[in-house]
Amino acid sequence: MPENILINKISAGDRRSIARSISVVESGNDNSTKLIKEIFSKTGNAYRIGITGPPGAGKSTITNQLTKLFRKQNKKVGIIAVDPTSPFTGGALLGDRVRMNDIGMDKGVFIRSMATRGSLGGLSKKAIDAADVLDAAGFDIIIFETVGVGQSELDIVQAADTTIVVLVPESGDSVQAMKAGLMEIADFFVLNKSDRPGSQQAYTALQTILMIKDHDDNSWLPKIIKAVATENKGIDETVDEIERHRNFMNYNNLFMAKREKQAKVRIKEIVEHKLKDKLWSETGENSLNLSLKKVILGNFSPYHIAEEIIKEFKNRI
Amino acid sequence: MPENILINKISAGDRRSIARSISVVESGNDNSTKLIKEIFSKTGNAYRIGITGPPGAGKSTITNQLTKLFRKQNKKVGIIAVDPTSPFTGGALLGDRVRMNDIGMDKGVFIRSMATRGSLGGLSKKAIDAADVLDAAGFDIIIFETVGVGQSELDIVQAADTTIVVLVPESGDSVQAMKAGLMEIADFFVLNKSDRPGSQQAYTALQTILMIKDHDDNSWLPKIIKAVATENKGIDETVDEIERHRNFMNYNNLFMAKREKQAKVRIKEIVEHKLKDKLWSETGENSLNLSLKKVILGNFSPYHIAEEIIKEFKNRI
Repeated sequence: MPENILINKISAGDRRSIARSISVVESGNDNSTKLIKEIFSKTGNAYRIGITGPPGAGKSTITNQLTKLFRKQNKKVGIIAVDPTSPFTGGALLGDRVRMNDIGMDKGVFIRSMATRGSLGGLSKKAIDAADVLDAAGFDIIIFETVGVGQSELDIVQAADTTIVVLVPESGDSVQAMKAGLMEIADFFVLNKSDRPGSQQAYTALQTILMIKDHDDNSWLPKIIKAVATENKGIDETVDEIERHRNFMNYNNLFMAKREKQAKVRIKEIVEHKLKDKLWSETGENSLNLSLKKVILGNFSPYHIAEEIIKEFKNRI
Repeated sequence: MPENILINKISAGDRRSIARSISVVESGNDNSTKLIKEIFSKTGNAYRIGITGPPGAGKSTITNQLTKLFRKQNKKVGIIAVDPTSPFTGGALLGDRVRMNDIGMDKGVFIRSMATRGSLGGLSKKAIDAADVLDAAGFDIIIFETVGVGQSELDIVQAADTTIVVLVPESGDSVQAMKAGLMEIADFFVLNKSDRPGSQQAYTALQTILMIKDHDDNSWLPKIIKAVATENKGIDETVDEIERHRNFMNYNNLFMAKREKQAKVRIKEIVEHKLKDKLWSETGENSLNLSLKKVILGNFSPYHIAEEIIKEFKNRI
């Protein structure tokens, strides 16, 4: 269908057009660029929430419960769930998504799973583009849900207005979260499964770590909310805390700086992605494949070959 | 000191020169390129082992025990331990390294921790360069130890000749490992802490998953070795399995294909890294910063700005 019709249909909230548009941005080709350029003026209205944490912390359940609550407030919710992919099999492993069945039938909810695809990356670019589609389609809330295990996953949740890190009271979980870089990106924490033994110790440990760490903007101290998401406990408090963070950011004029920082990261990723595409086009791959033998035979180092390839790239960029 | 002297000192196994050279490759600047080019002809003799797995699986302990065993065989061992870094604080979190104290004083062992630094990446490039330094310095065995949580960590262990995935018998651990892409990169598994309850079930679950999955080269079936690394159980078997895998690869002429694949990944990363460096030099950053306001004000999409930057890059590359 002609583009302007597609864009009108997105704006009207047509689900098939939204799904198609997200497939276009997932493909990451020139149509994707064209689409985002066209819809960009219609974006900027949705509030974006990032939910991350270690595997098994209950992120999907929390996303599910938050969505139900937002729906009661009559807000439309778009969910972008990013699953780590096996580099060999390709597709996302969608086990967790199954739990979302009870919200999946709601017309005011749109759920999309996205998979990491190989090391060429571009994952956060695609997830943020998909959020733009949902934003333009009039969703009030967009939730990025992703396991906090790699840089590109962290990039995604940092593209949110409010970022929530979900932990469970396993021994050492907060230390592992700190190692994975999750502590600094949290606007607040949800300590899920807090009916488990050891929950109070985990709470105290987390609080101790928070106290010794500097946070990004000094006046905001990330809170810890205790939750049992499967029993819907702590969900109201989570929504309240999102609201409190939003108000804090607005009141202190911090949104502009945050958005600028996010735009910078996003533009960099787009530029790098486009250059890579050109670089490893058929010509680039061929010249690389021809050079491999020279490295294996020990005649040239990988750095020699890399320089040859860059020289050749200069001529065809 | 002049370069050729440094290179001679590396070849002679001088520890200070090795440490300095690894710092040079960590800096990732032009000196690093020069260094690797110079030493490349002296590399290719070390056997490279990758050890990965989820946080807390006991990778450091296994590395430690393997190292002691290799030392008994009079082999020199270099260890490159890659720690995920907090994107805010910079440095690696070196808690696990403390455990290595008992091998750290051995002159036949060289341990180096490397940290991930921000999203510009280049981590696997640096780790592999560092392995080249150790290789040129005459280390017989090089162990890459890294937590299996992101693409760049997977890239590192895939640069090894034999890749070991360490798991523990926690419920669902093998499912999480599958999600993280660890199942397909394993030449074999070490099921550590296998004196814990649930160990036999974990073993069976892992074996079931292995049977339903295709492995890269059909004739090699990854084994599962039960271990209790803290008690030195299963370590002999691990070394034997490394040897068996090495022989299998040699016997079936699979090394050449593997090395070619690895060289390809490495060259790509070098090329991309060098182009990014040029791209985000002062000129590039400035032109990006100037454009940010246009995006925030909604006048231009990030894709418009990205195209402007690429146009400008063409002129200065």
